[in-house]
Amino acid sequence: MTKTTVQKKSNTSSAPKILLQDRELRNGHKGAIVWLTGLSAAGKSTIAQALEQKLFDNNTQTYILDGDKIRKGLCSDLGFSPEDRAENIRRIGEVAKLFQETGAIIIVAFISPYRADRDHVRKIVSAGRFIEVFVDCPLKKCEARDPKGLYAKARKGEIPEFTGISAPYEQPLHPEIHVKTDTQNLEQCVEIILAYLKDQKILTGQW
Amino acid sequence: MTKTTVQKKSNTSSAPKILLQDRELRNGHKGAIVWLTGLSAAGKSTIAQALEQKLFDNNTQTYILDGDKIRKGLCSDLGFSPEDRAENIRRIGEVAKLFQETGAIIIVAFISPYRADRDHVRKIVSAGRFIEVFVDCPLKKCEARDPKGLYAKARKGEIPEFTGISAPYEQPLHPEIHVKTDTQNLEQCVEIILAYLKDQKILTGQW
Repeated sequence: MTKTTVQKKSNTSSAPKILLQDRELRNGHKGAIVWLTGLSAAGKSTIAQALEQKLFDNNTQTYILDGDKIRKGLCSDLGFSPEDRAENIRRIGEVAKLFQETGAIIIVAFISPYRADRDHVRKIVSAGRFIEVFVDCPLKKCEARDPKGLYAKARKGEIPEFTGISAPYEQPLHPEIHVKTDTQNLEQCVEIILAYLKDQKILTGQW
Repeated sequence: MTKTTVQKKSNTSSAPKILLQDRELRNGHKGAIVWLTGLSAAGKSTIAQALEQKLFDNNTQTYILDGDKIRKGLCSDLGFSPEDRAENIRRIGEVAKLFQETGAIIIVAFISPYRADRDHVRKIVSAGRFIEVFVDCPLKKCEARDPKGLYAKARKGEIPEFTGISAPYEQPLHPEIHVKTDTQNLEQCVEIILAYLKDQKILTGQW
């Protein structure tokens, strides 16, 4: 009977494991987390989508984690207090880490206003795999854009704890990448990120 | 200035979106969640690893979510009370859904003892993409295997709320797949799952 049944002990220990490097060899690129942080309306989602499209078109395993996907699902139980924001970013970091470990380039587009929360994610990921991108745009520009009317609502007090208005945004001190969406256009921002990924040998081969 | 900066409104709405079917076409298979449920030591992880290896060897984007990866990371704040188990499974379901939406075949290996928790995951995923696999093994066999000595500890009361001993296990009523690890060997169990995936056209092409 021992020979013919599923025996956890014997099989698990001897089971061939699929290593990250096996997955990366298969995919033709390394896994990484591209973490876009910045104010609301700074351009994070726009850059994320353009970057994802470019990566996908070049045969890369890639995916975006953003508010639409996370706030309605995994973190639907969380609000916007500092504690809940910390937990929100902690969970996103853990999920991003899982994706990175499959060898994907996972793009995270979240305001993620607290430095400590972002640094926590950096710490749980292998060196070089967490790429912090500061999507920098002056508050007044973001507020002028205000595509969803959120700043207007925040100014009226209709949205509490709104980053930049009634809640802090802590800029990255040493981000791997710094793009300025008030002076650089979308193509430039994406190209800067792609150049970094190539320079770090996350992306290899034909580009 | 409008033309040269990253404008959320204009770019987001017109940005080309990558659809699940684009990803699946690229990967050469469909995305799905293979959800292994059963008692501790029933053989879930063993089957998960063997299945993952087989899928990977056949050029499939695949990954395992199990206790080692989740309980130490995403769900490190949760215990084993019914409420915490429910939240644990809810989060795993949300993460599995994200992976499925990238076009991967994500293998989940968790006791997941409560029917309602598993059914909740089924509900948040598109029809046909949640594949419940009942990894069935009688309690006395699992307890005899006891590779980690957990049942012995549970019997002594050293582990509270241990499924099968001091906490319930609710068998699936209508699982897509039912394997019996006390009478079927590992290869048979994996083959049954693969046959189902082929039958459902999750897996296509050469096998």
